[in-house]
Amino acid sequence: MTDRLPSWRPGQTRERLITYLDDLKSVPVADRVACFDNDGTLWTERPTYLQLDFFVDTLTRQAASDPTLRERPEFAALLSHDAAAMDDIGLERLLGSLASLLDGLTPEQFAALAVDFRNSYKHPTLGAGLEGLVFQPMLELLEELRALEFTVGVVTGGGTEFVRAISESLYGIPPELVVGTLIGYEFIRDDQGRPSLVRKSATHGKLNDKDAKVEHIQTQIGRRPILAAGNTAGDQAMLEYALAGPQPGLAILIEHDDADREFAYAGRAETTAENEPITDVADRLGWLKVSVANDWTRVFP
Amino acid sequence: MTDRLPSWRPGQTRERLITYLDDLKSVPVADRVACFDNDGTLWTERPTYLQLDFFVDTLTRQAASDPTLRERPEFAALLSHDAAAMDDIGLERLLGSLASLLDGLTPEQFAALAVDFRNSYKHPTLGAGLEGLVFQPMLELLEELRALEFTVGVVTGGGTEFVRAISESLYGIPPELVVGTLIGYEFIRDDQGRPSLVRKSATHGKLNDKDAKVEHIQTQIGRRPILAAGNTAGDQAMLEYALAGPQPGLAILIEHDDADREFAYAGRAETTAENEPITDVADRLGWLKVSVANDWTRVFP
Repeated sequence: MTDRLPSWRPGQTRERLITYLDDLKSVPVADRVACFDNDGTLWTERPTYLQLDFFVDTLTRQAASDPTLRERPEFAALLSHDAAAMDDIGLERLLGSLASLLDGLTPEQFAALAVDFRNSYKHPTLGAGLEGLVFQPMLELLEELRALEFTVGVVTGGGTEFVRAISESLYGIPPELVVGTLIGYEFIRDDQGRPSLVRKSATHGKLNDKDAKVEHIQTQIGRRPILAAGNTAGDQAMLEYALAGPQPGLAILIEHDDADREFAYAGRAETTAENEPITDVADRLGWLKVSVANDWTRVFP
Repeated sequence: MTDRLPSWRPGQTRERLITYLDDLKSVPVADRVACFDNDGTLWTERPTYLQLDFFVDTLTRQAASDPTLRERPEFAALLSHDAAAMDDIGLERLLGSLASLLDGLTPEQFAALAVDFRNSYKHPTLGAGLEGLVFQPMLELLEELRALEFTVGVVTGGGTEFVRAISESLYGIPPELVVGTLIGYEFIRDDQGRPSLVRKSATHGKLNDKDAKVEHIQTQIGRRPILAAGNTAGDQAMLEYALAGPQPGLAILIEHDDADREFAYAGRAETTAENEPITDVADRLGWLKVSVANDWTRVFP
């Protein structure tokens, strides 16, 4: 028993988690589906989303050979690290503009860029590469779930293709179980009639956040999760949905309260439009709150 | 060796298939992806698509309690089996109207209807239920591919949710590997704030046919197939895409030429707009043509 979830500190949180897992025998395997948010749930999301770093890397390289890119307000804000301008523009528009830099790439070309990034990235304060930014206790939970024959998906606000490029090697999660913000793809033929697919950011769908996370779990995975984990209001709908089905569910909220080992920003409302902080929602609905500081003996691998 | 593909008649077709499978050792497991069309490839599609029978069943039941449904031209044509009127209206509009009959259902409610249909359906001429309409040789091929650690998906023009409801039990293919024509889902809350998802046919995407099959393989599965099988021009793009990658690919075209055991309709162009019959495309591009009459010793389980 001591070998299970070794990076989870003995106590109420770990106990409730293990009790839940042990009680799953009555749940058919087909219903054993778990969905995990990515940023702030499976890996760190501070000081910036890792995908934003990937995109800004790409932008920096492209702007070196094409200075006109600096004339677009979104790119100017990003290249000059102008946080106020970025806030004004908004993350969704920033990401959309950044994604358009990669229009015309095939899935294989895009994946190669993402893998390059994975192999070269160093976190600005933690010093680690991507493999070192994943939460070790969550990897152990994924392992427990797989031992129980769970189907495990990542449900991320990030780009589906970016996360697919790293999900198998970081989490053991295959591309078909990554539910993210979709990019459009267009089927084209070259002069000789040979077919290929190319990225087309203008045709992408809804940002995969809040209610859309649940809608996309259905369209992409096709089954309701009984276990869901997240860390922000963007995950609320998904966590509630996991608890609303006929099977016993578990909703997990990761609270980032460890400035020494990671970052401390839990409990802060992300937007003023939020009328109920997510930790209050968690208490009201009986979610399992996980404190990075108190519940994890080890944060990173 | 004789235990492999037992319903495939010894000869050139079976030999080429087995040679291909045996030569896969150099292909990384992550690249071992196979995509199968459903109607006419994994199960029979004559005299009508089985999903159409499901929808017409639903329509017949609803029209019994709501006669105004008969006033809509699409439904009048379907209920009176008026083939000319159905042709005029077109399959896509017919299916869209039929899908709208199920608006507002949760995924679980829809799946229950589809499972009811699976358990009660009898084919009008073959007399079999759904399990008896699947092609036994294709089940054997799926088994071979799984033994080789392939990721196997169904890529169908049919409704994603309809095929998901039967794909695990008929083919051993889980919902996340079904790529079909998507229905929209909307996240809603009831009076008490409890969340659910409901079908909304008006928000569905592109019909999953021709080029769209390739685009949707990428958005849903996220990897290129190296083996693809189909039986119509709707599968051409997918089969070509499977052969266009860096790994050795195989494209399989099922030819329905067995009036005694199934149906004979191979080689007929489906529309006058088709400028090259699919069997000619197969010859030009070196696909493996499979004759139901000559290459299969047994058609159904």
